[in-house]
Amino acid sequence: MRNIKLTIRYDGTEYSGWQFQRNSRKTIQAVIQRAIKKITGEKSHLTGSGRTDAGVHAMAQIANFKTGSKIPLKNIQMALNSILPDDIVIYDAKVADPKFDAQRSAQSKLYRYTIMNADYLDPFIKRYAAKIFYKIDIARMKEAARYLIGRHDFKAFQAVDGVERNSVRTVKYIAIKKSADLIYIDIEADGFLYNMVRNIAGTLVEVGRGKCAVDSVAVMLQRKDRRLSGPTMPAKGLALVKVRYR
Amino acid sequence: MRNIKLTIRYDGTEYSGWQFQRNSRKTIQAVIQRAIKKITGEKSHLTGSGRTDAGVHAMAQIANFKTGSKIPLKNIQMALNSILPDDIVIYDAKVADPKFDAQRSAQSKLYRYTIMNADYLDPFIKRYAAKIFYKIDIARMKEAARYLIGRHDFKAFQAVDGVERNSVRTVKYIAIKKSADLIYIDIEADGFLYNMVRNIAGTLVEVGRGKCAVDSVAVMLQRKDRRLSGPTMPAKGLALVKVRYR
Repeated sequence: MRNIKLTIRYDGTEYSGWQFQRNSRKTIQAVIQRAIKKITGEKSHLTGSGRTDAGVHAMAQIANFKTGSKIPLKNIQMALNSILPDDIVIYDAKVADPKFDAQRSAQSKLYRYTIMNADYLDPFIKRYAAKIFYKIDIARMKEAARYLIGRHDFKAFQAVDGVERNSVRTVKYIAIKKSADLIYIDIEADGFLYNMVRNIAGTLVEVGRGKCAVDSVAVMLQRKDRRLSGPTMPAKGLALVKVRYR
Repeated sequence: MRNIKLTIRYDGTEYSGWQFQRNSRKTIQAVIQRAIKKITGEKSHLTGSGRTDAGVHAMAQIANFKTGSKIPLKNIQMALNSILPDDIVIYDAKVADPKFDAQRSAQSKLYRYTIMNADYLDPFIKRYAAKIFYKIDIARMKEAARYLIGRHDFKAFQAVDGVERNSVRTVKYIAIKKSADLIYIDIEADGFLYNMVRNIAGTLVEVGRGKCAVDSVAVMLQRKDRRLSGPTMPAKGLALVKVRYR
């Protein structure tokens, strides 16, 4: 059995997220699993580094599956790309260590949230950014973001219906960048709670437009109350950029 | 009567081009004209700087219409944007000189053709670029492009069913740029024949991948025969970038 590691890029607009769902044929995982079955003739389980929600994109999602098929690696990749819809592309395929597990072996993940800070949303990026028309002060966002770095209980930034009992995570890196009308929020952590990036983005926007004090983020972390933090930003602005392994 | 000049950005993927067509409700012009009528109550003709074909995009198409309505300019823009689908955005609205005509006053137009030179088409730009997987030599494209600059009969680059009797045009500027896997062909001219940019792009690709000699472009211009030039590249890679006025 070979353990195949895939690097996958997808536009999540038309999908109900990564994870297989009984009531939806259109999840990234299900679509790729069906393509793998067509090629190898085997029913394989495709393990992703983690779920991405409905409408969320990935620059480089990592996933693995095991196969007894003898088809050369390059041909597997080409065949998958010829079957897959053009909003899912296999950028790379490698044979991984038999013990490699895209989810359990992951050390950290980097997500990017993209905001267009303008009166109108550019039609060319409307699928990949959320519009905020209020004037945003980036310096305030940067200052507030510093409170999030490190090991904290991020319960205040978890969806109310989040299922994680342990909401302690370590944010390793957070950066706010601006390029013309676009604002990028990059967050790397050892793991993310449900809606965590979108809730952090919503909170930083509130700070940036002056609705919240810069140090209110520290209070949110301390009080662990979702009602204190900002709104959940739309899925379309979110993309999984990188998964780091040992 | 005010003469309103609009700067319009659109993703042309879902449209049958700019120009009103009897058999298609979905042209950019028709959709904006309907929105104008909703706002002003008047039936106005919207004159574009020129047509863009089905699937072609615009970063800044220019158009004008006349109205007796007293609605403030900013409100016209906001109302149009609230009615228009989100793949058409009015970026700017100004009161122009009564004599201004978006088509007849135009001095030149700049188009950009975008090619992704890679094995797979990035799902995030699949709507805005054509994929070429052959290895392309940019230096050859640049050299060949130089023959196109100046006043020439571009009949060899006109669609066979082109209707223009006079196929002489002046190419003022042409540049080939590369950024990672993307190749941009920028062409500015006083006017364009039907499919001219897409045929020039197809020809330059043939030269870039070594299928045509660099100086074959000179022969095409001289012989004025469409059968000599390269294939018509797909519409989705083309965008109207700028219209220049006096």
